[in-house]
Amino acid sequence: MNEFQLIDAFVAAFHPPPPPLGPGDDCAVLPPARALTCVTTDALVEGVHFTRRTFSFEDIGHKALAVNLSDLAAMGARPRWALCALGLPDGVNATELRAVAKGMAALAKVHGVELLGGNVTRAQQLSLTLTLGGVVPPGRQPLLRSGARPGDVLYTSGFLGDAAAALHLASHRRPVPRALALAQRRPSPHLAWGLAAAPFASSAVDVSDGLVQDLGHVCAASSAGAELERVALPLSPTLREAVPPPVAQRLALSGGEDYVLLVSVPARRATAFERAVAKRHLDAHRIGRISEVPGVRVDGLPFRGPGGFQHRP
Amino acid sequence: MNEFQLIDAFVAAFHPPPPPLGPGDDCAVLPPARALTCVTTDALVEGVHFTRRTFSFEDIGHKALAVNLSDLAAMGARPRWALCALGLPDGVNATELRAVAKGMAALAKVHGVELLGGNVTRAQQLSLTLTLGGVVPPGRQPLLRSGARPGDVLYTSGFLGDAAAALHLASHRRPVPRALALAQRRPSPHLAWGLAAAPFASSAVDVSDGLVQDLGHVCAASSAGAELERVALPLSPTLREAVPPPVAQRLALSGGEDYVLLVSVPARRATAFERAVAKRHLDAHRIGRISEVPGVRVDGLPFRGPGGFQHRP
Repeated sequence: MNEFQLIDAFVAAFHPPPPPLGPGDDCAVLPPARALTCVTTDALVEGVHFTRRTFSFEDIGHKALAVNLSDLAAMGARPRWALCALGLPDGVNATELRAVAKGMAALAKVHGVELLGGNVTRAQQLSLTLTLGGVVPPGRQPLLRSGARPGDVLYTSGFLGDAAAALHLASHRRPVPRALALAQRRPSPHLAWGLAAAPFASSAVDVSDGLVQDLGHVCAASSAGAELERVALPLSPTLREAVPPPVAQRLALSGGEDYVLLVSVPARRATAFERAVAKRHLDAHRIGRISEVPGVRVDGLPFRGPGGFQHRP
Repeated sequence: MNEFQLIDAFVAAFHPPPPPLGPGDDCAVLPPARALTCVTTDALVEGVHFTRRTFSFEDIGHKALAVNLSDLAAMGARPRWALCALGLPDGVNATELRAVAKGMAALAKVHGVELLGGNVTRAQQLSLTLTLGGVVPPGRQPLLRSGARPGDVLYTSGFLGDAAAALHLASHRRPVPRALALAQRRPSPHLAWGLAAAPFASSAVDVSDGLVQDLGHVCAASSAGAELERVALPLSPTLREAVPPPVAQRLALSGGEDYVLLVSVPARRATAFERAVAKRHLDAHRIGRISEVPGVRVDGLPFRGPGGFQHRP
C-alpha cells in the first residue's frame, strides 16, 4: 500500500466533513468563527503510551482522540474538528489502520468531531499526533489554570487512580479488573462536565499527569496553594477492592492518565455548582480547597510522594 | 531534565504570543476570526526526512516549520500560529533542543508565526509534528487543487530538483554543492508568491512529492490532464552544472521536496499574472498547460518515470 491508499483506508471510517472544511487540499479550511477557538495537540506513541499487547487498534484510535478531547473539556470548549498525523512502522496493514480509524471515528461521532485532514509518515513506532479545535460557547470565557483563589472548593469530574492501577497491577503480574483496564485504554473525555462547570469554575485543568502534579500547575498559575484530604479522594469501588487503601490513595494522588477534570469553584457558588452538575446526572467529587500557602498539602502536610506521571521521565 | 524543563528550553526561543493566545493552559485560545482559516499538519521524522549527520539541529527546526508554511502558501493564506508536538529520544539535551527551537523561531519571526503551544513525548526517533493555522486575506477564497481548466497555463514559483539532487549526489558519494544542500535542508516557503498568485490562479498545490505526482493530484481533483515540456523545466544553474541534463530533468519531474508552488492560471490572465509577480520581484516559471486528456504528459507522451517521492514507500 502506498501513502495515498493508507490515507484512504484511514479516512473511510469517518463521515466526510461539510464544506468548506475537508481533506484533499494542502490545508483544511475552517469557516469564520465568531467565538473563541481552543486548539490543542497531543501524541500517543507506541511503547510510551501503549503497547499492541495490551491495546487493540481500536483502543489506540479511541485513546489518541480521547486525550485531546480531555484538553478541550478542561477549557469548557465544544469540540469541532481534528487533524491526525500518523507515524506508521513497516508492517502495519490496511486492516489494522482501519481498526485505528474505527476506534477514533466512533468517539469522534459521539462528540461531533470532524476529521479535516492529516498526514502520514513512515516511523519506527506507531504514533498518532492529533490536533483538535473546539469553540467556547458564545458569551463564555475559556477556563484557565490561573483563576483559582484561596477558599475555592476543589472538585474532580470522576474517580482517580483507576488507569494507574491497571498499569500497577499489570507490572506486578496480577489480574487487572476490566473496569480498570478500560479506564486506561478507553478513557471517556468529560466534555459535558466541562461545559456544565464552566459558568461556575474559577479554574480548570485536565488531570493527565497525576492529581498533585496537575493541581500544582493550577496553584503555580494562580499564585496559590491547595489542601487535599486523603479520605475525600474519589476512589472507584473496583480500585478499593483491587489494592490496599494506601496504594489506592497513592495512585489517586500521583498515578496519572486519569483524564478527569479538576476545577476550583468559589465557595459561595459551590452549592449552585453541585446542583447544576447533579441536574445533568453527572458527579462532582469534592476533594479539598485552594489555600494561601503555596504548594499542595495532603492532610495538612506538604506532599512528599512522587511528583506524578511524566511521559518523558 | 524533566518534561517541563524541556518545554521551557524550547519555548524560550520564541517571543511570547499576545493574549488571548498562549501556551500554559490545556489549550491555546484563538480570537474570533472573520476570515477563513486554513489549518495543516505535517511531520518531520529522523531517519525518514532527515539525519543528524547531514542536518544541524537548527536545520531540523527550520525545515519542520518550512514544510508546513509551504502548505499555507499553496492555499494563498497568511500564516498566524503554530502548535509543535515533539518526539524526543533519550539523550537529546537542552542545548540541542534550544538549537531546534532557534532554527524554527528564526523562520517563524520572518513569517509572523506565533508558537501557541505544543506537546513533548519520549520517542525512539526525534520528530516534530507541527500544526499551522493561517488566514485567507479578506475577500479572497483559498486556492484549491480542483480549479484547473483545460488551457490554463502552469507556473512554478521556483526551481525544481535541487533538493532531490542533494540526496542523489550524497547517495552516490559525490560532493553536494552548497546551494543544493541548502535547498534540501533549508527550504524557503513561498508565502509572498502564494499571496501574489491568489488573485489569478485557478488552482494551486505545494510541490513536495515531485512535480508529476503533485500535478497529478491537481489533474485528478480538476478532472483534467496536463502537458509539460522538458525544455521548460526550471533548473537552477547549480543543478545544471552538477548532473547531466537527463538526470536533472528526472529529478525536476519526480524528485520531491521542492517546496515550490505550482499554480494554474487561465490563459487570458497569464500576462497580468506574470506582471503582478514581476512587480514583487518574484519569479514565475512557465512549465506547461492544463489539457483535456487525463494524466500528466511530458513532451506529448504519458509520463512513465517514477511516481514521485513518498515518505512511506
